[in-house]
Amino acid sequence: MRLSFCCTDTDAQPWLDGLRQALPGALVEPWTPGAAPADYAVVWMPPQQFLDEQTRLKALFNTGAGVDALLKLRLPPGVPLIRLDDAGMAVQMAEYVCHAVIRHFREFAAYEADTRQGRWAQRPPRLRRDFPVGVLGLGVLGERVSRALAQFDFPVRGWSRSPKAVDGVQCFAGDGQLSDFLAASRVLVCLLPLTPDTENILRRDTLARLQPGGYVINVARGRHLVDEDLIALLDSGHLAGATLDVFRTEPVPADHPFWKHPKITLTPHTSARTLTEESIAQIARKIRALEGGASVSSLAGVVNQALGY
Amino acid sequence: MRLSFCCTDTDAQPWLDGLRQALPGALVEPWTPGAAPADYAVVWMPPQQFLDEQTRLKALFNTGAGVDALLKLRLPPGVPLIRLDDAGMAVQMAEYVCHAVIRHFREFAAYEADTRQGRWAQRPPRLRRDFPVGVLGLGVLGERVSRALAQFDFPVRGWSRSPKAVDGVQCFAGDGQLSDFLAASRVLVCLLPLTPDTENILRRDTLARLQPGGYVINVARGRHLVDEDLIALLDSGHLAGATLDVFRTEPVPADHPFWKHPKITLTPHTSARTLTEESIAQIARKIRALEGGASVSSLAGVVNQALGY
Repeated sequence: MRLSFCCTDTDAQPWLDGLRQALPGALVEPWTPGAAPADYAVVWMPPQQFLDEQTRLKALFNTGAGVDALLKLRLPPGVPLIRLDDAGMAVQMAEYVCHAVIRHFREFAAYEADTRQGRWAQRPPRLRRDFPVGVLGLGVLGERVSRALAQFDFPVRGWSRSPKAVDGVQCFAGDGQLSDFLAASRVLVCLLPLTPDTENILRRDTLARLQPGGYVINVARGRHLVDEDLIALLDSGHLAGATLDVFRTEPVPADHPFWKHPKITLTPHTSARTLTEESIAQIARKIRALEGGASVSSLAGVVNQALGY
Repeated sequence: MRLSFCCTDTDAQPWLDGLRQALPGALVEPWTPGAAPADYAVVWMPPQQFLDEQTRLKALFNTGAGVDALLKLRLPPGVPLIRLDDAGMAVQMAEYVCHAVIRHFREFAAYEADTRQGRWAQRPPRLRRDFPVGVLGLGVLGERVSRALAQFDFPVRGWSRSPKAVDGVQCFAGDGQLSDFLAASRVLVCLLPLTPDTENILRRDTLARLQPGGYVINVARGRHLVDEDLIALLDSGHLAGATLDVFRTEPVPADHPFWKHPKITLTPHTSARTLTEESIAQIARKIRALEGGASVSSLAGVVNQALGY
């Protein structure tokens, strides 16, 4: 069995070593143009030429949870596309989002500013019932984030395209309930896949539906957010702040207003990193299952290319 | 029934209004010197004169979880002392500690410093198995904090005076296991009551047992920590940082080195605030139970004055 590894922006050696160790019978090789077509491929933003050369793939594994970039390419027809399914990402997302929500709710940034000035002053406690958190997207990541937030007794609402039920989360579904979901939220967390339907979903009219003093956390894709609409609502005071990990252009250009905006916290797409060890274990487990005769539909993370996730 | 309210550093009116509403049959009054002795008292750092005047108290309620200051006074003999039991504090502690642990583990302060310089750079992901968190004290607050940390998949260890069992937490107990507990921890969270046994428990020889790159979070009492020992271990590099909410003297004196130390995050005793509404409800519920004939031992939060908590 031949496995081709074709990941840009990735240190290949730990992946090659790990895949070889996890799949002792396999020939695991980094892709070079013109190499023999493989049975399985592990990719991140591969060149079109790589995909065009694959004539006998049994499955294509994406080393991330989001496949929006991959779906812009011409994929080998009929080949199942499998994305990472948690693989250590969900807990990272829960950490990132809970840190941002708690930091805002408890005003820790303001306390740190006080400390820098040698100022000792308690602020009035805020009530968590005044800080309902809405999670856009209730996939593996969104569900874990929702549960983590609920553990801190925040009122949690969730929204997904198709109806879902998550313990302790007030769930909304479909376009018809989006507006009610937004109006029931003060903090908004975006964990949606990027598709034509969800592009620009964070824009002036949707963000304006959030409760006053709203807060936006985007850990999905930069193109979910209309940058200038966010800034307008921050500057008008309707929104109190935002924590952003993903951007239309990454790295964020030096002259982008996000860098210096006092109400924006920015991180360099680090909310949930692909963890080599966990990801290799997951991909190898799925390849062994397929080689053992399992059906593709029995695996987690198989992308519905029509839906885009 | 007469209830006397005697809390320093407290806005009395919401408490008086709330207690009157919750206990319609009671005469609820702020204490004045020489007032008639009460059946119940609600106190925070009362003057000795108040306590000396109470000759018929059925119970004394402390509006905090820690009774170390109260136990320094001469209390009316034979009167049960009842401290707050959670009352909205445990979730605040969980928030505060998880925020501090995640912030350190994920290097968010360093990322924010990068942003201020317009720098976009991912750091290598750190492994949570390298960040075991040890919680000193497994009472109502410690247990909730431990569970919250375990939810983020950190290895969690707990230590208590007498043996306890908490799901998902490796528990140690007693003086004999303190050293092993410390050696099994990299992040140390102090949630102990302050007693003669626990005073100065965070000192050079105990903190030196923590794993290299250790981190200290003190949300209990300032006298648990030997300030100069913490600074020495931060400066030697054995400890990577500390988040402190409680201090030997509060407010922290202007010339104290904690204010400016680059590895210390300081907050003004705000990790878990007494919430008026929840606390009134809890105290009123206990008074109604006692008046209805319940035994003191059936209530949560009754202080064992010999143990000091």
